Formats: sequence, C-alpha cells, structure tokens
Amino acid sequence: MIKCSIIGASGYTGAELANLVQQHPQMQLKGIYVSEKSADAEAELGTLHRRYLGQLELELTPLATADVAKAAEGVDLVFLATDHKVSVALAPALLETGVTVMDLSGGFRFDSPAPYDKFYGFTHDNPEWLEQAVYGLAEWNAAAVCHAQLVAVPGCYPTASLLALKPLQEKGLIKLDTTPVINAVSGVSGAGRKASMVNSFCEVSYNPYGVLNHRHQPEIALHLGNPVIFTPHLGNFQRGIVATITVQLAEGVTQAQIDDAYQSAYAGKPAVRLYNKLAENHWPSINGVANTPYCDIGWKLDSETGHLVVVSAIDNLLKGAASQAIQCANIRFGLINYPLSKKVAV
Amino acid sequence: MIKCSIIGASGYTGAELANLVQQHPQMQLKGIYVSEKSADAEAELGTLHRRYLGQLELELTPLATADVAKAAEGVDLVFLATDHKVSVALAPALLETGVTVMDLSGGFRFDSPAPYDKFYGFTHDNPEWLEQAVYGLAEWNAAAVCHAQLVAVPGCYPTASLLALKPLQEKGLIKLDTTPVINAVSGVSGAGRKASMVNSFCEVSYNPYGVLNHRHQPEIALHLGNPVIFTPHLGNFQRGIVATITVQLAEGVTQAQIDDAYQSAYAGKPAVRLYNKLAENHWPSINGVANTPYCDIGWKLDSETGHLVVVSAIDNLLKGAASQAIQCANIRFGLINYPLSKKVAV
Amino acid sequence: MIKCSIIGASGYTGAELANLVQQHPQMQLKGIYVSEKSADAEAELGTLHRRYLGQLELELTPLATADVAKAAEGVDLVFLATDHKVSVALAPALLETGVTVMDLSGGFRFDSPAPYDKFYGFTHDNPEWLEQAVYGLAEWNAAAVCHAQLVAVPGCYPTASLLALKPLQEKGLIKLDTTPVINAVSGVSGAGRKASMVNSFCEVSYNPYGVLNHRHQPEIALHLGNPVIFTPHLGNFQRGIVATITVQLAEGVTQAQIDDAYQSAYAGKPAVRLYNKLAENHWPSINGVANTPYCDIGWKLDSETGHLVVVSAIDNLLKGAASQAIQCANIRFGLINYPLSKKVAV
Amino acid sequence: MIKCSIIGASGYTGAELANLVQQHPQMQLKGIYVSEKSADAEAELGTLHRRYLGQLELELTPLATADVAKAAEGVDLVFLATDHKVSVALAPALLETGVTVMDLSGGFRFDSPAPYDKFYGFTHDNPEWLEQAVYGLAEWNAAAVCHAQLVAVPGCYPTASLLALKPLQEKGLIKLDTTPVINAVSGVSGAGRKASMVNSFCEVSYNPYGVLNHRHQPEIALHLGNPVIFTPHLGNFQRGIVATITVQLAEGVTQAQIDDAYQSAYAGKPAVRLYNKLAENHWPSINGVANTPYCDIGWKLDSETGHLVVVSAIDNLLKGAASQAIQCANIRFGLINYPLSKKVAV
Repeated sequence: MIKCSIIGASGYTGAELANLVQQHPQMQLKGIYVSEKSADAEAELGTLHRRYLGQLELELTPLATADVAKAAEGVDLVFLATDHKVSVALAPALLETGVTVMDLSGGFRFDSPAPYDKFYGFTHDNPEWLEQAVYGLAEWNAAAVCHAQLVAVPGCYPTASLLALKPLQEKGLIKLDTTPVINAVSGVSGAGRKASMVNSFCEVSYNPYGVLNHRHQPEIALHLGNPVIFTPHLGNFQRGIVATITVQLAEGVTQAQIDDAYQSAYAGKPAVRLYNKLAENHWPSINGVANTPYCDIGWKLDSETGHLVVVSAIDNLLKGAASQAIQCANIRFGLINYPLSKKVAV
Repeated sequence: MIKCSIIGASGYTGAELANLVQQHPQMQLKGIYVSEKSADAEAELGTLHRRYLGQLELELTPLATADVAKAAEGVDLVFLATDHKVSVALAPALLETGVTVMDLSGGFRFDSPAPYDKFYGFTHDNPEWLEQAVYGLAEWNAAAVCHAQLVAVPGCYPTASLLALKPLQEKGLIKLDTTPVINAVSGVSGAGRKASMVNSFCEVSYNPYGVLNHRHQPEIALHLGNPVIFTPHLGNFQRGIVATITVQLAEGVTQAQIDDAYQSAYAGKPAVRLYNKLAENHWPSINGVANTPYCDIGWKLDSETGHLVVVSAIDNLLKGAASQAIQCANIRFGLINYPLSKKVAV
Repeated sequence: MIKCSIIGASGYTGAELANLVQQHPQMQLKGIYVSEKSADAEAELGTLHRRYLGQLELELTPLATADVAKAAEGVDLVFLATDHKVSVALAPALLETGVTVMDLSGGFRFDSPAPYDKFYGFTHDNPEWLEQAVYGLAEWNAAAVCHAQLVAVPGCYPTASLLALKPLQEKGLIKLDTTPVINAVSGVSGAGRKASMVNSFCEVSYNPYGVLNHRHQPEIALHLGNPVIFTPHLGNFQRGIVATITVQLAEGVTQAQIDDAYQSAYAGKPAVRLYNKLAENHWPSINGVANTPYCDIGWKLDSETGHLVVVSAIDNLLKGAASQAIQCANIRFGLINYPLSKKVAV
Repeated sequence: MIKCSIIGASGYTGAELANLVQQHPQMQLKGIYVSEKSADAEAELGTLHRRYLGQLELELTPLATADVAKAAEGVDLVFLATDHKVSVALAPALLETGVTVMDLSGGFRFDSPAPYDKFYGFTHDNPEWLEQAVYGLAEWNAAAVCHAQLVAVPGCYPTASLLALKPLQEKGLIKLDTTPVINAVSGVSGAGRKASMVNSFCEVSYNPYGVLNHRHQPEIALHLGNPVIFTPHLGNFQRGIVATITVQLAEGVTQAQIDDAYQSAYAGKPAVRLYNKLAENHWPSINGVANTPYCDIGWKLDSETGHLVVVSAIDNLLKGAASQAIQCANIRFGLINYPLSKKVAV
C-alpha cells in the first residue's frame, strides 16, 4: 500500500483526488490538509462535497507553511492541490524529506523561471526543482515520471490540447511555421471553489476569457514544441473541457498518416479513446467524458486544403487534474492502473 | 411625463427597472443611484448588465444616506431597489419631500414592526410609515395604491403565492383551519447580484432552503389572511419562480366555483394569464414567463378528496419585482398600462 | 459469480445497470438485449452511452418476445429494464425457467390488477405473479427480497418518497386522516431515452406534470399505507430527484421521536444518509446525489403547528432504478454490498 | 402601415418574427401560416410559445403550396420562415404577385445553384431568382436591400461571422492566402422546433458537429470573399451564438488600423455594439445578447505574431434571423428602426 497525503484537499480537485486515493486498491489516504487559516479546517471533506458524504469522513487538518514536512511523515507520496505560489513555497521542504510529490498546480510545469513573472505574477525562486520536475503528461512521459521525485501534473487545457496535438507534432505532420489554433471551453469548476462574480450563477453563460494571454498558452507551446494560438472560454456547465483545434498539415500528408499517428500514439493507453472507430458524425463531447478519467479524441481532414480539425474532451477535474495525478502515481510506484482498470479483481 | 429616479439601480432588479422606466412612453428616468461606497459607482448601467449595453447609458451616481433627498429633487417618483434595512433608513427623508416612493424591499410590507425582529434581524423604527404604506399587489390593491405615497411592492414568492391563493380565500373556498402548502422554486437571480458560495455556479443545483423560517412566509400569511406552509427552493436557472400549492377545499366546493373564482378575480387584468383555457396537460412553467411581466396560473381539482393543486409562475425580477413596481406606478399616476399594453400606438 | 443478463439495456437505466453489473466484483454480465426491432440492435452499449465507451463493449442482442427464455440460459438473474407492458409480457416465460427476475418497470409493483387499467392504460393479465412479486424497497423489504424469485424494483419517485415517509408511518407519527403533500422534481432522464417535444432541450425548464393523476401516486400510497398528494415536476437537469414533503404530525410528537424514527430506521443502512448531523442550513440537493447510489434525507419540525417538512434526494437512474436493483440482487444472492461497500478489497 | 404575413410561423424563429411584427409601430400582421399538414394548424401561436400567450392570439392558417399566393393577398411583405427547399418552392409564386419577400431560409443565399447540390441535398431550379435575390446582411447591403423584391436573410452563423470579419476584409487587413478559423457555438434553438435525439435534453452538452462540411461555411466564404475554416458546436443553452475567430493579419497592420476598421464600419449602426470601449477583460457573451437584436464584437491583437482574435455574439433567433429580417424590412420600406429605436415616441 502506498501511503498518501493531500495538501489543499478542500477544493474541487482535492475532493476528487481524495476520492480516487481512497478507492484505489493499492493506496491509503493518511491525511488531508488545508492552509492554517482556511474556513474549512476541521471539516469532514464529505460535508463540503456532499456527493462524498459518508464516503470521505476524514477531517481537514490545518497546516502551517512552516510545518509542511508533517504532511510527509509516514507517507510515500504527497499530492499538492494548492495554488501555484503555495506549491512553489511548500514543495522544497517536502522534497527534502525524500517523499515523492505530485504537484497539481502550475508551479513546476516550466523548465525556467521566466514564464512565472510574465504569466503567473510572481518570481519563481526555485530553478533547481523547476529543472528536476518531470511534466506528468501520463501517456507521453511515463519513462521520466517513473523515476521522478517531483511530478508537475499538467494543466487541464494543456492536457486536452497536448494529447490532441502531440501525435501530429511527433510525426512531423504539422506544416512548418504555422500555428495551430486551439479553441477550448471549460466548465466552471476549472475556476476553483470560491465565491466570485465571474463564477456567480447568473453571470455565467458562454464567453472567451484570457484571450491571447492565458497562462496555459506557454505551457502548451513548451511541451508541444510549437507555438499555438489558445483561446479559452467559460461554458455553462460544472465540469469538462472540449478543445477544438485547427491545424495546417505539411504538404502531402495523407489520411492514413494521420490515423496512424493517433493509433500508434495511443495503442495500449486506455485513458485515451479514439473516435475514428465511430460513425462520422460522432465527436467528443462534455457528456461523453464528465465524471470519467478519459480523454476522447476525434479528427477530420479537409484534404483539399490540408487543414485538420482535431477535437479532444476531458473532465477538467479528472484527466485534467486528479485522475492524471493518480496515473502518474501508478506509473511512479508500479501500481495497477486504477481507475482505468475497469474491474478490480477480488 | 412622470419623472423618476431609482436608488439601488446596480442589481438585477434595478437594471430591469431602469430598462422598464426608460422604455415607458410616459416615464422619464432622471437619475440612478448606488450607495456611496459601491464598487459600481460612476459605471454605466449597460456596462454592468451588458444585455442593456448601449441602451442604458446613464451613469450610477453615488449617494450618501444623508443626501438621499437629492434623489427626489425634480422627480415625481423614487423607486427603492435597496436592501430592506436601507429602504427603512432612506424612505422617511424621501417621503418628507412629498415625492412618491415605490419600495421594492421588504421594509414596509408588514403592518407592524414585530416581524422585522423575528424574520429580518433588525428593529423597525418607523411604525408610522409601516401603517401608511400600501401593499402593492397590483391586481388586488389598486384602489389603495391609487392614493398611496408609499407603496411596498410585494416580494417575489408572495406575488406568485398570493395571486394563486387570494381568489380562493376571498370566496371562502379554503377549508377552515387548514394550511395551504406552498412549494416554490426560484431562479438564482432572486438571491441578488453578489458573489457568494451559495450562488456559485458549481454549487447550484436544486434544493430547499429557509425551510419553515423564510421571511416570505409571514408576508404571504398576512396578506392572504391565512397561515401557510412555505418551502422555497433554489433552482438551476437564472430567473423565474414556479409555486406549486396544495389546498384543502371547504366541503362541497365545485369545479365551477373554483373556475369562477379565478376568472372573476382576473377578468380585465392582463398581467394574469389563466391556464384553464389550455389543454389539460399544460401547466405554468419557467419558460412560459421568463422575461415577461405575466403571472401564469393553472389549477386542478381532486374531486374525490377535495384537494386543489394550483400552480403559478412569474419572472421573479419582473412580476416579482420591477414590472409590478411599474404596474403600481401606472395605477398611482394614471398612466397607460405599459409594459402590458402590447403595442404602444404612434 | 452471479451470472446476469439485462433486457432493455439501451436506455439510460439499462446502461447504468450494465455498468454496475460489470463493475460488481461478484457479478458477471452475460448478455444485454433489446427488442427485436430496436434501432440499437447490434450496437455496442458504450457507443450509445459514450461515457462508457471502451468500458461497455458488449453488443446489444436483439431478442424476440417468443425467444425471451434465451436471456435466462446460463444465468442466475435477469434484469428487466423494459417498458411496463413489455415486462408483464416477458416476465412469466423467464420465471418459468427458474431464473430470478428483477423488474425495474412498474409491471409488478401493485398487489392487484386494478391500478393498471386506471393508471397504466392496459389490463394486467398476470395476477398470480402480481401477488408473488416482492416490492424491492431495499431498506424496508430485505426479508422478503431475500427469498423472492420476482422483485418489483420501486419507481424513482416512490423510492424518494417512501424512504422519507416510512419511518414516520411505521412509528405512527403521522396525524390520522391527514394526507402528506409530496412535491417532487425529476431530471429529464426520468422520461427515458427517446426523442419527444416534452424532452426537447428548448422546451424543458421547470413545470409540474401529471398533476393528481401520475401513476406513482398510487404506488406510494399502497406501499406507505396512507394516501398522499403527489405532484411531480420536470426540472432542467439530466438526473436526480428531490422530493419535498409536508406532513401533519400526530398531536404531541416530539423532535426526539422524529429523529429517533429516522435514525433507527436507517442505522446500518449505508445507502441512506441522514442530514440531521449537518448544520441546520444544509438540505439534500441534486448535486449531493447525482451519480451516487445514495438517498439523502433531511427534516425540520414546526413545533408550533406540528408540521414536518422532510426532504429526500436520489439519483433517479441509480437509487431510483439501477443501484436499487443491484441492492436487491445483493440481498437476494448474499453478495457484498457493492456499490455501497466503499472500497472493494484486493 | 406595412401589411405583413408570415409563412412557417410555428417554429422558434417564426414566433419571434410574429412578435416583432406585432410590436412594430409601423407594421400590421395580417396572417400567419403553416404547411397544410402541420400538427400546429389552427393553433394560436401564443399557445405553442407560451411566453407569448395572450399576446400572439392569431391562429395559424394551414396553407397548401398551390395556394401560396393567398398569403400575398392584401399584404406588402411576406416573410418565409420555412425550410430551404420549401422557400425555393414557394417564393416564385409569391414574387409573381409583386409582393416583397424576406426569406429566412438558405434558399436564396447563394448566387448560383451549385452549392445546393453539394450542401443542401437538393437541386435548385430557380437560378433567375438566385441572381436577383439580395443578401440581407443589414449593416453591409442596405443599398441593395432598399430596392430588392427578394431578400435572402443571412444564416445565424454567417451573420455572426461576417459582421466580425467584413471590416477586416474590406480594409484589406487579412493576410493574403490565409484562412480565418471560425469556431462558433449555438444554442439548441438553432436546430429548430422538432423532437430529435440530437436535441433531446439529456443528449445535449457541448460538442462540435458538421465539421468541415456545414452549409454555412460556403455562405460565409462567398459573402466574405475569402475561404474560411468553420467549426460549429452545439451548446447547452436555448439561444445565442458566440463566434471566436482567429485571423492572420497582413504584414504591418496596426492596432489603430484594426480599431478604425471596426469603428468606421459600424458608426451609426445601432445593432452592432463594439467592445473596445469596455475594460480589457470584457468579451461578448451569450448572456449579453440573448433576447436582444444586437451583435456584440470584441477583438484583440497579438502584435508579436500578427494574429487577431475577434469574438462576436448574437441571438441566433433575433439578429441571426427574425430581427435581421425586420431590419431588412425597415430598410426596404423606409420604416423607423424598430426594435433598435430604443423608445418609440407617443
């Protein structure tokens, strides 16, 4: 049994993570923590997220930054479901204890400090760990995750975008000097569990935000190895992301090459479901992935113009956060592939 | 032209009211005000409520409590779309100037101060105006509204409930010593325009609240003249209320008596639409009333047991607030029945 | 391993059931069937319900009524997720093979044929099995379900209503000759998976239907042992039911008696979660139960008038159908309490 | 008074149109028609669309194709809110009577028959009227609409897309040989008022459809004068469209040139609202335009790469259909600019 604790467990992602750890046949949830002054301290997690009432009866323990190493005592793995800046502050003391850390924030997703000043609004003071951290895109970086002490679990939009684009990029199918256009829409849980006018029920409908300056744009570009135009939108649903991506293909790329790129990339990867087996008018949707650990991908070629439209869908709280963190933990500790192993044997 | 100003114009109700006043062929909107420290001060109303962008270009003027009489200068009518306590504080100084006041809060809906301590959490210090205020249930109190200087525009749930129950009560059709059961659901705009966890998109689904202690229960009971059980619910839509009411009828009441009670109560009242003309399986719905000034009412008798189910629906921001305030103003100043006059002649 | 088949597996309930059977550590899904002429014949279930894509790869086998016994070959248990009339037609031939049948339709929920003519529009021709069938309200009828060959799994509204009312009824706390008033709202999946104007996205908002003549009213009254007024509503969400129930209590009933009635009824019943442990302003909600096998129950007493408001919430497709069927199967075959056993041991 | 009739008035667009005509101070609604065999024949329009109950009391008259000229008797203007193929069949007989026709279908939006075979699935047999028809993009084609006998009112997606792109195209700001990428999402009413699995409440979430072969792609390309990639999506709301468009600009285009292109294109055009006056983080949204006749447009330049993101939003049933048809009628008959004239004088 891998013993785990979760810091920042009161949010939407934290609750999903706590549930997945608790259901995992090879994991044990030892502690769940919130910041010292959180209004949720001492609350049972299932009371805050009543879907899990009676199932997540652990209490949220308040934890001061100075005491963070306590969360590593007696555990093999600490999940950080904290704000970017908080993760950067907490990770080093945890890592020093030798514990493995899966950070779900953006705190260690870049390989240099520069993007933090520009996109996150703070100066990153830990370039050593930035370098050592492994980007936990589970289907692509397993070899590195396998030995990592610090895994930077990818953002929700980058997960959807990269899983859709990397098969093309790796096979050299994207036309040189062109910029894929990513339009994505996220459910409101992506903005976190806090009261704000932006998330207020009557204010939510469907609109873009963060146009041309969202922090997930450089994350996608870095880990794809190609610039992208990324326009996120807020949609009127609780969870899920659909990314619709338009790509100009290199001269002469064929349908067979494209199909092969996806099929070979994701053969034996049960968290990615390819839609080319379905009838033509089926496309990934929010309904298809909400409350699941899957990434669904469909694509279509305009052979006259060489444009390809690729659509991917994930649950932002699961494949875009908690279940991808569990995938990385499974890889890191050699566990069975829960929750993707459909039926746990008895 | 009746010159009007609106205090508390930045909220959902205030914006609807500003729009109705501005569209009214016999009204002129002279000023819109927010409290001195409001973050919305100096903003154009159409910028806050972008549906009205380009249409409501007046700026929100900040107004100190001490200066409230300024809002009455040069106008015939002041609408208060303010919090209960604020209305109680502002109304006297306005009324002293001789201006007519339509208060959309609960500040003057009772005839004595007692309910304020119990249900509103403050002590009402203005029993004189409580007595003089006229309850503005437009279809029932026109004779009094006609001469009132202070009109207490009814709450949203009370409007839906009273319009459904008063025809039965007035005709003596409700069984003595029984208590009608009102179950109602409101869209989220009923909770006002402010960030809170309760209104946060991911927290809203459908659930009761204020069970057995909501402040609209005594308001309904007082103006009906009968106790009621009132259970409000929050629904996952932006606007609208449906109230489903179960009533035990007096011995021997017939279908014809019930139909007659409704038809005679609402003959010549265009804001109430009776559903008995429609096919049996048609019932008032949120879709049927959202963005309209109507109250839709349907009913069905269980002749074996003498139970009647009555269903009413309104838009909480219109018939439950802004358009009912306009109806009262039309009555008070002898104006054409806008917005109910379907087509304004040219 | 209990071998199972499902007839009528293409609908929303059928898909949930197939998923639960397939995840159950002690069950094996041998076959899924649709009617001979179904457009879904030969389709993979996961293709129709893409949430389960890659997880439910069994194909839907078309099955003629005359061949229904085939679905019983080699299996211990057949689930009928079929229309009421179809269940009545299919069950006898299945039962004759000796197989156990869990019927999720209304076909065997009454103890006499009369209600079928009145509420279901067909004449029930199988009074023997009506008598033998056990009503599968899992928390209340386990002793009978334990030995039953035919279990009539309760309707969704009756499950929510009966779990809320039976503790009061059994303890004699409801005032004699009074009629509890049940107002309930269901998500649209309750109407089944088929195209109709009623379910059409733009037509759905919130409104009552089936007022004073819904077929679940007699089902609730029969199994409660008391008449009820039942008013169902259609809400603008995909799944879940909230029932808000107003009860007049017998003279002198105390808060302690009520609390005890619920606590003693549901001690050791993990599918029912009582809200009296939570803070006062917490009530069962759609969000709290959607995608879970739970029934959440909260209540509040108006001690002045002796009225009690009880609120229960379930997922209509799970506790209101599929997961309650699994509960009954667990009882019948002595299985572990999946999906309520939180963590299946390895 | 301009006398009008509407053919195909029972759908969502037809009802909006009937309402706008009836409210128009200079129009008179003489007749509303449905096809001979419509289930809605003889129904009051307000009964089908209960939002308009009591307001649209005209009855739907059944009309055989052979008798279509009757709809032109005594009227100046016929609106066709019919299916594409039906419009093509009905228009000639109407036009022969000399009446003016506003066709809201796609039947006359192209200048040659070819696209009908490819994108609409029928052969267009009326090339003469295809040539004479004027494309009714109100802000751009007023000079031609002014004298037209047949106006092809643009589709909903093309309206949103063209209003956003034409200012750039007309000023030559789009980079030669590049293809703007249009991602758009529509509310479900865009699919019309009919029962289908696609529109079924539980099936709707958010997903693309018609990828790389939607019939609005060639309509946009033709009237823009540039190819486009157009990917439509179905969103989980009743009405409204947001189009998010990514454009590569010609070398050296400045922010000032872009701002000027939009401002000069839409100066004095009250139906288009430009967002450059608002704070940077405000973007067009569904909430901002639903139930309004406006097109909202915002844009942002990535000056490093020369990409521009333009976002436009409309109500698909109003600016995308009914209110644009009224705008065209206002232009054609020299009427006041209702519903855009904010306040109709008395």
